[in-house]
Amino acid sequence: VPRIEGEALVRVLAAGICNTDLEIIKGYAGFQGILGHEFVGEVVDAPDRAFVGRRVAGEINVGCGRCRLCLQGDSRHCSDRTVLGIKGRNGAFAEFLSLPIHNLIEVPESLTNEEAVLIEPTAAACEILEQVAVTPDTKVAVIGDGKLGQLAVRVIATAGCEITLIGKHQEKLKLASAAASRLVWVDAESQSAIVSNLLADLDGYGFDLMVEASGSPSGIELALQLVKPRGTVVLKSTHHDKTPLDLSAVVVNEITLVGSRCGRFDRAIALLAARIVDVRDLISARISLENWGNAFALAAAPSTLKVILEPGRIGS
Amino acid sequence: VPRIEGEALVRVLAAGICNTDLEIIKGYAGFQGILGHEFVGEVVDAPDRAFVGRRVAGEINVGCGRCRLCLQGDSRHCSDRTVLGIKGRNGAFAEFLSLPIHNLIEVPESLTNEEAVLIEPTAAACEILEQVAVTPDTKVAVIGDGKLGQLAVRVIATAGCEITLIGKHQEKLKLASAAASRLVWVDAESQSAIVSNLLADLDGYGFDLMVEASGSPSGIELALQLVKPRGTVVLKSTHHDKTPLDLSAVVVNEITLVGSRCGRFDRAIALLAARIVDVRDLISARISLENWGNAFALAAAPSTLKVILEPGRIGS
Repeated sequence: VPRIEGEALVRVLAAGICNTDLEIIKGYAGFQGILGHEFVGEVVDAPDRAFVGRRVAGEINVGCGRCRLCLQGDSRHCSDRTVLGIKGRNGAFAEFLSLPIHNLIEVPESLTNEEAVLIEPTAAACEILEQVAVTPDTKVAVIGDGKLGQLAVRVIATAGCEITLIGKHQEKLKLASAAASRLVWVDAESQSAIVSNLLADLDGYGFDLMVEASGSPSGIELALQLVKPRGTVVLKSTHHDKTPLDLSAVVVNEITLVGSRCGRFDRAIALLAARIVDVRDLISARISLENWGNAFALAAAPSTLKVILEPGRIGS
Repeated sequence: VPRIEGEALVRVLAAGICNTDLEIIKGYAGFQGILGHEFVGEVVDAPDRAFVGRRVAGEINVGCGRCRLCLQGDSRHCSDRTVLGIKGRNGAFAEFLSLPIHNLIEVPESLTNEEAVLIEPTAAACEILEQVAVTPDTKVAVIGDGKLGQLAVRVIATAGCEITLIGKHQEKLKLASAAASRLVWVDAESQSAIVSNLLADLDGYGFDLMVEASGSPSGIELALQLVKPRGTVVLKSTHHDKTPLDLSAVVVNEITLVGSRCGRFDRAIALLAARIVDVRDLISARISLENWGNAFALAAAPSTLKVILEPGRIGS
């Protein structure tokens, strides 16, 4: 049982497949090891026995604990960090995982295991609100109707602003109808007409804030077409390849691009526990860990949202 | 004589060749017309006769005057704008040019014509301080020892911070020795060692603020290597081509990229007139307008800084 000295051993109850996992399989981040960084589990062993038996989620970045960033509380950017299932540390697609106690956060009883698995990606969506000022007047559009786009819409809506969701899948778009004030279906052929229509609706000025969560280079291009001069584009997707970018448009229109990754768990847990952000409709399937191959194939399909792996599940 | 109805006619005394002019010749911005957007001139005709005889510099963006951005005072981003010598409006490499009176700013007597030509690019450097908070504690590095890099170093130094200038030309680097606290010569072979040394000097954390003013894709790559997590990279260069960018590094390290273009003239004129920013050593040559071909060839040479064209100059 792989408990790292000084850390807690956690029995995985459920773990989610993220697009980052699919990118890592293609070669992104060069990680060799057990994947999985979205999970809920039960502490079965820990240096402090008081933690044993608790149901927890976990911050995925483990810093060195000694550098300036770690001492400032930002282990997420420690240059010597390991990252659960992504960098130097086996992940959650297993029966057990090991994490330091201070990475673990107890999950409120009101949250199901499936909801708790979504704490980590919900925190990643919350990070947008930590990085960019969003007010009820901010005109926001999110590109990408997948898991991250759905969470971004629901989290940003808590700022009280109107949000446009732009995506390629009618069924997935519909899931955002409560939180988004406008749903825009787009494909390669319709894109230029849709850009014109959206800009006309905004009197030609573009959105104050674009969130790129499609995971596609064409999504970034679309974001640069739709953002207003001096506006902000938040980049949420990690890609395996370099992306050709029209930086002259960024310079001439004085756009700010903001890279955005992991967020703090406390805000996410509060929003989920109060069901201000409700993620129950984002679960596409629960599959036993032993059928991980089928689960990954399903997760890669365009119509799928969150696929959850359960080590303790019997059968499929 | 090409005075546009309602505008002022300006006799050009001197005009500077900018890298943007060299990029436009390669195809950037698709502009067909007279180039030139850095100038000083004398008003020879104007709807309000009080302006005639004044020595002026000029804001290069001419907005529609009716849209929300223009009414907010930001004609620089009006979507219907023309731009002197760049977009829909003939520029300053001519005997005369036409601009609206409200684009013109009188040049203090203490400034020579050559210095006044540098008001526009100095304003572009001042724009960095409008966009990003720089304090005496901010660790800043500028990439590019050319005209824009030199101006960026001198302008940012007014914030009281220490600046590292990174460039490929020993002679040009030396020109920044007053304003920059560290000069770093780099070439393709030495780059990785230099990155390691600089990061070691910063305890591994990187610079708070990188300014990319090299005009080269490798400059952006270097900036992303040297910026600290959650740091800022200001992009000052416009390129003809798309740039392949490692957006995953931007996302994972949560870097902010800020496109930066033209700035307001008032700050630039104040800094130049007080010689807080002294640009006299940045003038490489003064050449008559009729010898523009030689002037452009000289401006494109790596060792050259600002080349100034003078319509009234006799001979070379």
